[in-house]
Amino acid sequence: MTRLVLASSSPARYALLKASGIDPEVLIPTADEQALSDQFKTNNPNHTTSQLVAYLADAKAESVVGLQETFGALVLGGDSALEFQGATLGKPHLAEVAIERWKQLRGNHGVLHSGHCLIDNRDPAAPKMVSKTSSTKVYFANITDAEIEAYVATGEPLKVAGAFTIDGIGGAFIDRIEGDAHTVVGLSLGVVRDLCGQLGVEYTSLWR
Amino acid sequence: MTRLVLASSSPARYALLKASGIDPEVLIPTADEQALSDQFKTNNPNHTTSQLVAYLADAKAESVVGLQETFGALVLGGDSALEFQGATLGKPHLAEVAIERWKQLRGNHGVLHSGHCLIDNRDPAAPKMVSKTSSTKVYFANITDAEIEAYVATGEPLKVAGAFTIDGIGGAFIDRIEGDAHTVVGLSLGVVRDLCGQLGVEYTSLWR
Repeated sequence: MTRLVLASSSPARYALLKASGIDPEVLIPTADEQALSDQFKTNNPNHTTSQLVAYLADAKAESVVGLQETFGALVLGGDSALEFQGATLGKPHLAEVAIERWKQLRGNHGVLHSGHCLIDNRDPAAPKMVSKTSSTKVYFANITDAEIEAYVATGEPLKVAGAFTIDGIGGAFIDRIEGDAHTVVGLSLGVVRDLCGQLGVEYTSLWR
Repeated sequence: MTRLVLASSSPARYALLKASGIDPEVLIPTADEQALSDQFKTNNPNHTTSQLVAYLADAKAESVVGLQETFGALVLGGDSALEFQGATLGKPHLAEVAIERWKQLRGNHGVLHSGHCLIDNRDPAAPKMVSKTSSTKVYFANITDAEIEAYVATGEPLKVAGAFTIDGIGGAFIDRIEGDAHTVVGLSLGVVRDLCGQLGVEYTSLWR
């Protein structure tokens, strides 16, 4: 069995890995995500959403790779954001922001980008790093004002990228997607398999 | 709050409803699924996969709707199958069948059909029934013989329609989908919302 360390505090990423037969160890990234994000945006005024999540996924994985708990393991960093009408939408945090967002999202579509960075730290003297970003088109249902208010009242959309989940309470408000399904949850298992292949690791050796 | 009774023994459908904020009561359908399926196929030699799952979803909901536990509630029946190269694929049951299936599925695509039947039994003297089937295109990754063997050895594909899950161990072996994501798990939350609307029930009133 190959050990996997998840460098992310996202409960959705952890639950997804568990459901897929993997028992990841978790290390909260020491990278200051907000500061890194602001700095990246300042240094790259014409960046795409895809570039931003790739940068943050790399930073999260790299921030823990010096820790002894990762020696002998693969380290996985991930970051996600919604691209909508040219803007990058992260977590709304406030109820009034979430309500305004949903009034724009409903009946429209966006693209959920998830960045992945996998570092092979089985030999800590010579770590190897590979990265890949996946993008999935998401079509939002044309929900009513009452549904938006009921959804925001649950608190769920405030703390998630793009103000929605597909694997939680928001599931009924996504009409359809085109692309990898787990990318929308925040972590593509297919990409993890692909990156394992690049590192010469059998994906199935991650299974418990 | 509106009560929902799930007329299905599928743990995936139950887990999906729970994750979406709904606490369904569960009643195992008394309908003999295999007998009904065989009978339907005999009586309708030119049936589509979509027609078969619609018929079985209706039969499952109808089989419990006379039981007192459903009085005052909505009753939801569901059934799923994979359409692949003109054939309807259910559960493989045997390891050798699952291995042969995956050798055909890999690198190809199919359509997962999920039938839904919602019966409003809030007034048991006058139940109202609405139905809808949703269909999602599924693209399978071109996995290796070793991956097929490791996957079948987990036992998971033997007991699921089409020999794969997207929400379990098989998640990494689905490259992309086009359509409603939960249809692939066996139950579209968007369809449940739609059927609630047809019955004059607010979908959000199902939330705990």
